[in-house]
Amino acid sequence: MCRWLAYWGTPVLLDTILYKPEHSLIDQSLHSKLGVETTNGDGFGIGWYSPGNTTPALLRDVGPAWNNRNLRELADHVRSPLFFAHIRASTGTAVQQSNCHPFRHGRWMFMHNGAIDGFPLIRRELTLLVDPSLFPELEGTTDSEVMFHLALTYGLDRDPPAAVAEMAAVVERVGRAHGIEHPLQMTLAVTDGERVWTFRYSSAHASRSLFYSNRVDALRRLHPDIAFLRELSEESRLVVSEPLGDLPGAWSEVPESSYGVIQPGLDEMHRFAPAAA
Amino acid sequence: MCRWLAYWGTPVLLDTILYKPEHSLIDQSLHSKLGVETTNGDGFGIGWYSPGNTTPALLRDVGPAWNNRNLRELADHVRSPLFFAHIRASTGTAVQQSNCHPFRHGRWMFMHNGAIDGFPLIRRELTLLVDPSLFPELEGTTDSEVMFHLALTYGLDRDPPAAVAEMAAVVERVGRAHGIEHPLQMTLAVTDGERVWTFRYSSAHASRSLFYSNRVDALRRLHPDIAFLRELSEESRLVVSEPLGDLPGAWSEVPESSYGVIQPGLDEMHRFAPAAA
Amino acid sequence: MCRWLAYWGTPVLLDTILYKPEHSLIDQSLHSKLGVETTNGDGFGIGWYSPGNTTPALLRDVGPAWNNRNLRELADHVRSPLFFAHIRASTGTAVQQSNCHPFRHGRWMFMHNGAIDGFPLIRRELTLLVDPSLFPELEGTTDSEVMFHLALTYGLDRDPPAAVAEMAAVVERVGRAHGIEHPLQMTLAVTDGERVWTFRYSSAHASRSLFYSNRVDALRRLHPDIAFLRELSEESRLVVSEPLGDLPGAWSEVPESSYGVIQPGLDEMHRFAPAAA
Amino acid sequence: MCRWLAYWGTPVLLDTILYKPEHSLIDQSLHSKLGVETTNGDGFGIGWYSPGNTTPALLRDVGPAWNNRNLRELADHVRSPLFFAHIRASTGTAVQQSNCHPFRHGRWMFMHNGAIDGFPLIRRELTLLVDPSLFPELEGTTDSEVMFHLALTYGLDRDPPAAVAEMAAVVERVGRAHGIEHPLQMTLAVTDGERVWTFRYSSAHASRSLFYSNRVDALRRLHPDIAFLRELSEESRLVVSEPLGDLPGAWSEVPESSYGVIQPGLDEMHRFAPAAA
Repeated sequence: MCRWLAYWGTPVLLDTILYKPEHSLIDQSLHSKLGVETTNGDGFGIGWYSPGNTTPALLRDVGPAWNNRNLRELADHVRSPLFFAHIRASTGTAVQQSNCHPFRHGRWMFMHNGAIDGFPLIRRELTLLVDPSLFPELEGTTDSEVMFHLALTYGLDRDPPAAVAEMAAVVERVGRAHGIEHPLQMTLAVTDGERVWTFRYSSAHASRSLFYSNRVDALRRLHPDIAFLRELSEESRLVVSEPLGDLPGAWSEVPESSYGVIQPGLDEMHRFAPAAA
Repeated sequence: MCRWLAYWGTPVLLDTILYKPEHSLIDQSLHSKLGVETTNGDGFGIGWYSPGNTTPALLRDVGPAWNNRNLRELADHVRSPLFFAHIRASTGTAVQQSNCHPFRHGRWMFMHNGAIDGFPLIRRELTLLVDPSLFPELEGTTDSEVMFHLALTYGLDRDPPAAVAEMAAVVERVGRAHGIEHPLQMTLAVTDGERVWTFRYSSAHASRSLFYSNRVDALRRLHPDIAFLRELSEESRLVVSEPLGDLPGAWSEVPESSYGVIQPGLDEMHRFAPAAA
Repeated sequence: MCRWLAYWGTPVLLDTILYKPEHSLIDQSLHSKLGVETTNGDGFGIGWYSPGNTTPALLRDVGPAWNNRNLRELADHVRSPLFFAHIRASTGTAVQQSNCHPFRHGRWMFMHNGAIDGFPLIRRELTLLVDPSLFPELEGTTDSEVMFHLALTYGLDRDPPAAVAEMAAVVERVGRAHGIEHPLQMTLAVTDGERVWTFRYSSAHASRSLFYSNRVDALRRLHPDIAFLRELSEESRLVVSEPLGDLPGAWSEVPESSYGVIQPGLDEMHRFAPAAA
Repeated sequence: MCRWLAYWGTPVLLDTILYKPEHSLIDQSLHSKLGVETTNGDGFGIGWYSPGNTTPALLRDVGPAWNNRNLRELADHVRSPLFFAHIRASTGTAVQQSNCHPFRHGRWMFMHNGAIDGFPLIRRELTLLVDPSLFPELEGTTDSEVMFHLALTYGLDRDPPAAVAEMAAVVERVGRAHGIEHPLQMTLAVTDGERVWTFRYSSAHASRSLFYSNRVDALRRLHPDIAFLRELSEESRLVVSEPLGDLPGAWSEVPESSYGVIQPGLDEMHRFAPAAA
């Protein structure tokens, strides 16, 4: 499948998060520990928000992240308070820029790890459920892009958890109607540039791994010698497919069938249960 | 738009047709004379048949043809009795391998120059008309790929001219229902590996240029000094978006609203008129 | 050859300079008016300085600039007070990232339009003159990269005009020793992140075109209605291979055999004459 | 480092060797078992001979082999009696086509797994030892390309084992003069289109793995049920960085410090000892 990372907090150089950690996402592109595939070399993408522009910027390319010089350059020069990064392991669909995450719609970004089981079988039916006004935006062939546009169809910009739940319910309904026992497997992240919602869910309740970083103030007390932690606000937060290192106390697992909200003030964690449809 | 070339006849090294001519397709990628765009640098593709394999081989890439070393290599080493070559000028859709012609389905190949006017507006409706069993094959975002799969839907493998006519009629009907005056502009080529059908048509009856090479025996009498002509069978034939050079007597224009069949024995030319639907 | 653009002045969104003008560098990549080649589609590069980093960032890729989405994204999100942009038309050397301009060494950037005549013949001899400590930096096969490293060898970081003059003199001496009548053809730009030096020179005194933008205060008086000019400081300056549009009074030609210095305070223009060596 | 494969024998479809085996080279690009790196995704190349052309054809690209569609296409359509295939794991040098193996000079091909220790330190000195007439051919930045051109300098086309031995001796002499204890690590293959020479050697006598397939007639007796073996001539031979599967009796290890010659009639194996220089 894939690996991803979402950052929200004090503006940092992308390098600090993308390359510096011992088991960084770039390292995971070569040697994932918890993924279904150990290599995630079928394209990558980053998306970040800059001051004065509500639309995030995207850098996406079809080669592996680990040897991409443009990504390395940007990581050394771009600072951002909110960014997504994704490395892809294709399960057969074309390796092309339009299949690289994150996907974008206006100020919204979306990325995904997982799969819709039997997607070739139900791709047409799901695609037809995308709002016709959004149809022209579909450029690739991934289940993820369709999931994003279904969530947009169901009101992502009004109520993200409800829209994602409806998307998940629809995928499960259509999949089961085609005899697929466990249609959906997903960890996903969406953002409007202000808050980040992350979801961990699968029809079989055996979801891909997902972790969040613990509160920075608690980490600082545990590790007073780590300079980097002193630069971060207490609310800064990472959500990752797998931990970026072995720092004791740094990571907590996102519970099965739940979603989190990262936002100014207290973050939240809730149960995620797509309505049986 | 694009430029293309179809060759049928004595097996020749691709180089002979692709690079050697004075105004070759590779030269046209930099300096088209008759095209809407002078530069066709948004990807390219070749497809060729080899002995012992009814499925044609494809080489497609997203960069320009003129500087592609792999294409140059193949041209020096591959001989084929039937091949298509296409250079692309995108009108906005993604530059990705899955948008490069020729497209393939089993032993069939298809390539296109032109456009469906207002395609973003009617893409969804046309896509829905593609046979559901063919839907999983759609990998890109071009009008051309949809046109091919509509032709397949309408029986390309039974009666190519009828299937292409029905495709064209459907595109015109759907387009006009959305207020598009002249929905279709196309020169296209399809082959099953034995015969080649080429079409020149547009709703406005002002179609993109298309030429065919005249009979080799007539050319030999005109140009007894050209060694290359002596190597070709009398039936060898090229169809091209624009002539590959200025050889007097070499090229004839395909008439407006017509299609040709290149085949063993006499080739044919017929009127092409999509049924008003 | 190539086309390039150097900007120095009020921090602007790259888009303002790269895409917005009527005959922008991106448009020149498809349709150069004054270049030897009309198409510059063999790779591109931009290099820009960001606050807090004396090393410029580079984005370089091997496809054409006109269809590159990552360039389009950066142009919409990156602001910079000093950047270089370059589009390449290869004259045979490999189309690879390491042959794309600008080249970089520490805080220095360099880009070039032109050629060393007979470069394959004298490449080895010129390469040997590069300081051995700089040799490991050579990654590509262009004359431009060798010219940059010769200029570095001859003290670019102490006295740019003198170092470039010595480089040019050496190229001419080595070329002439091999029977090349007019060894050098160049317009080039170098910067240390604070000042920009641009050169127009050729052994035959028939150099490629080069233009600079006239003083912003004079342009404002001529065109009080152009909002963009009001945003720029009076000292902002562009140097370009060909004008970005037809604004009357906007552009002056850099004189043959001269170099300019763009810097805080008054810019300068001087005669450029490589010492006969 | 890298993985490679050389085939000599009955003309076969590339697919048979490249994709079909259980632990094929394509599988090794994702999951090498014996390599220093488990992932070999920094470019790939194949080179093959076709009837009527003494110059081999090359297909090389900068992405991973495992997801490359053009490689997949060629493998299904090209038959050859002699081909090389190589997958690359860069140790820092640029990922560009000109750094992909095999390298070619006229009818000669060359590929390498290993490294010159301290290459950045001695690259200049080694490059200067390349015959000046060959210098213009250098397009990349790998130690491998320099090794090939040194071997050409020392008479590869007259006596391949002697030329490779001299190259190795020179690399060791220059390396040791710079204080490098074990300058050379290599398994390499060269061919002139008729014979194939393979070498396993390292200054520390701890060389990368290399295996050859045992005689086809012996394998047939062991595995009378394997259809593929019945199609091959008795002299057909594979040399590989690591075995393509677990077929008992199929593979023998090339001894440390030796070279083999694959040729019509009896193949040979000899000791390889670069002269102390």
